[in-house]
Amino acid sequence: MERIKPRTLSGFMELLPEKQVRLEKMMEVLRNTYSLYGFAPLDTPAIEDAQILLAKGGGETEKQIYRFQKGDSDLALRFDLTVPLAKYVALHYNDLAFPFRRYQISKVYRGERAQRGRFREFYQADIDIIGDGKLDVLNEAEIPAIIYRVFRGFGLTRFQIRVNNRKILNGFYGMMDLTAQSGDIMRTVDKLDKIGPEKVKAILCTDCGLKEEQASEILRFISISGSNAQVLSALEGYCGKNEMFDTGLAELRQVTDHLAAFGVPEENFAVDLTIARGLDYYTGTVYETTLLDHPEIGSVCSGGRYDNLAGYYIDKPLPGVGISIGLTRLFYVLDEQGLLNPTLPSAPADALVLPMTNDPAPAIALAEQLRSGGVRVQLYAEQKKFKQKMSYADKLGVPYAVLLGEDELNEGVCSVKNMTTGEQCKLTPRDAAAYILQGLQAQNGPIILE
Amino acid sequence: MERIKPRTLSGFMELLPEKQVRLEKMMEVLRNTYSLYGFAPLDTPAIEDAQILLAKGGGETEKQIYRFQKGDSDLALRFDLTVPLAKYVALHYNDLAFPFRRYQISKVYRGERAQRGRFREFYQADIDIIGDGKLDVLNEAEIPAIIYRVFRGFGLTRFQIRVNNRKILNGFYGMMDLTAQSGDIMRTVDKLDKIGPEKVKAILCTDCGLKEEQASEILRFISISGSNAQVLSALEGYCGKNEMFDTGLAELRQVTDHLAAFGVPEENFAVDLTIARGLDYYTGTVYETTLLDHPEIGSVCSGGRYDNLAGYYIDKPLPGVGISIGLTRLFYVLDEQGLLNPTLPSAPADALVLPMTNDPAPAIALAEQLRSGGVRVQLYAEQKKFKQKMSYADKLGVPYAVLLGEDELNEGVCSVKNMTTGEQCKLTPRDAAAYILQGLQAQNGPIILE
Repeated sequence: MERIKPRTLSGFMELLPEKQVRLEKMMEVLRNTYSLYGFAPLDTPAIEDAQILLAKGGGETEKQIYRFQKGDSDLALRFDLTVPLAKYVALHYNDLAFPFRRYQISKVYRGERAQRGRFREFYQADIDIIGDGKLDVLNEAEIPAIIYRVFRGFGLTRFQIRVNNRKILNGFYGMMDLTAQSGDIMRTVDKLDKIGPEKVKAILCTDCGLKEEQASEILRFISISGSNAQVLSALEGYCGKNEMFDTGLAELRQVTDHLAAFGVPEENFAVDLTIARGLDYYTGTVYETTLLDHPEIGSVCSGGRYDNLAGYYIDKPLPGVGISIGLTRLFYVLDEQGLLNPTLPSAPADALVLPMTNDPAPAIALAEQLRSGGVRVQLYAEQKKFKQKMSYADKLGVPYAVLLGEDELNEGVCSVKNMTTGEQCKLTPRDAAAYILQGLQAQNGPIILE
Repeated sequence: MERIKPRTLSGFMELLPEKQVRLEKMMEVLRNTYSLYGFAPLDTPAIEDAQILLAKGGGETEKQIYRFQKGDSDLALRFDLTVPLAKYVALHYNDLAFPFRRYQISKVYRGERAQRGRFREFYQADIDIIGDGKLDVLNEAEIPAIIYRVFRGFGLTRFQIRVNNRKILNGFYGMMDLTAQSGDIMRTVDKLDKIGPEKVKAILCTDCGLKEEQASEILRFISISGSNAQVLSALEGYCGKNEMFDTGLAELRQVTDHLAAFGVPEENFAVDLTIARGLDYYTGTVYETTLLDHPEIGSVCSGGRYDNLAGYYIDKPLPGVGISIGLTRLFYVLDEQGLLNPTLPSAPADALVLPMTNDPAPAIALAEQLRSGGVRVQLYAEQKKFKQKMSYADKLGVPYAVLLGEDELNEGVCSVKNMTTGEQCKLTPRDAAAYILQGLQAQNGPIILE
């Protein structure tokens, strides 16, 4: 037979089972947390009409998109989950209850230049709250609570949710008579973390046409820092000069005021005036989330408030607020940094049942009993020597081996071997299930170890 | 702004939230059951190198596949989960422990002619057990137990797992000196359910070149029926004439012998000699699953034993056994037949917390307390009249509304309203969580109602 060398395309993540288990656990945290806050799961097609996906147009998107013909159809793979959401809400507008809260954890596709740590197929884990005409700022205050629960669920404590409000920035540029340039200024300032203040200043002057003192004043303004209370108090000093600024500050106050009620500790939250987000799309609160010990990763969860989700598809104002976690990239970086908890059980089964009698029926029945008790069981079905069976159990990393020989059968028990400690004991099937589940609970730990 | 009419491509399933919840519950049953039997979750890319996906070639696949260029790459979307599995096992052969058991629940793509109930993007939910060189027949005996648990998990009882062994058929055709035609005969016989015995006989004679008495004998053979014991006993009569037949019968005995130990009731299982499966790929036990009250749907879970998973990619014999559930089509048909349990709670939240005071902080804290108690809570954040708030709760279908006004605050309680019965009671937050969870448990039911 002629053979083709198997390979997986570069830029596409394909994990071995022990890694995949960890990614699945992160997805479970996301599903559970998003559900806990009342978001409905959504699943839209990966392929859409290309005209619809590209309604907004735009350079980078158009270049990176996977677009192809099938018959007469002009098709494309989704490049994010926001455009499909906009289409969904516009299409099903009459069938949805607003505010409409949905989460979606799905793969998206971008044909970027292949490079280390960049993926062409990757999971995004998004939530959005969409209002019909109006949406209260309290929704924006809730988002940090959700981010907090997600990252704590992953096992992290050393992270910071950084929040700003674009109305404050736009209002401030308004005070300086720079409203026309505010989009350009924000896109430039958004690069501060990456290129530093000197380069930002240079670009503000040369590309955005600002005077040097204007650029300096902007840099001075966004560098206001301290505790949340201190930053808010410093911002009070600018009040009364620009209506948009005042609105933004009031919104920021509402977001910070309720942190304690939402259970978000001060140390995991910071008002940060340097956060601008590159997209013009955002109109109010904006969010970024950084891992304190790994600032080089950049934001691992970003989003914000927008006023017009689906203007390209429907004649209704649909304001919303949402965040997105680039799960594939986050997982890749955590793994690269060696932060995935190595002791977390990652075998596909909790126990491997080894039949040691000629008739496998008793071992089959035992496996079924353990499963009914909630234990994930693999029945070892191959005719191999005992040593080979145990070596398979080792290779699989299964926490328990359960042996059933003539002796055990006569006694109405099974032998349960803890594969980590080597300890072995004889138990009835019912007790064995409880013993294994209890042992597993003790082995349970965070997905990520800081 | 110029608008584009939003639409979803035909042949692509996009569900409203209340339907999506039911599909998610089915996926949860699949994930949990597959895990309970020690299968590892796997996730392969949706896009692969087209040459690799099409290594086997073949007419229909080639016509239906979504294939496109990106830069210099010849890419295609997967059309099943078996070819990507073969690639995965061949590529990661040295890193896997064999037998390797994996499940994958992912979307696959086939550009079929659009017609009602046919999908171009659909979920397959597959399990496979892959051996390295050898794989014991006991694995084939385990498959019906997994199918049984899955369909019971969906809420079904009126289904039948139909099992045959291709060695029995091949052996029987061998006895008749029809080995050369056995592939054609099986593909023809496989259509028996759809076209009836007369047409099958006609095709056997005209297209496969059989004599009429040969065709009659085949139809007589495959129509052997009765209890499992009766069919097996009738098959004994053919023993000793063909080695392959004898092997097949011994394997079929092993599969049926252990049903009781695996907990599969007789009534959900039948030896059925008409089951052949169209694919040459299968070499031993083959499975189909039908809903007894809906035979028109055809098989909802099929698969079998094969001897050579990845011969196109690797010089190793990799025998295996697997099944596949076409989840999207199954869901579509169940919905069409009105079998989805309408009373199953499908709201994204268990409770809607309604702040009735000026300061939302107490309501926020209450919502967080309920969430910590395991209740999925949406905080209603909009400034609306009470009537509008309750009408939103109704539209959402949320089982409980939790009201927090000045009175409740002063008493240290909240008012919990059962939205189905209209009953309302005052409870502390802790008691409210327990009360709601208990009420939900009572409302819980099967996903599918027969």
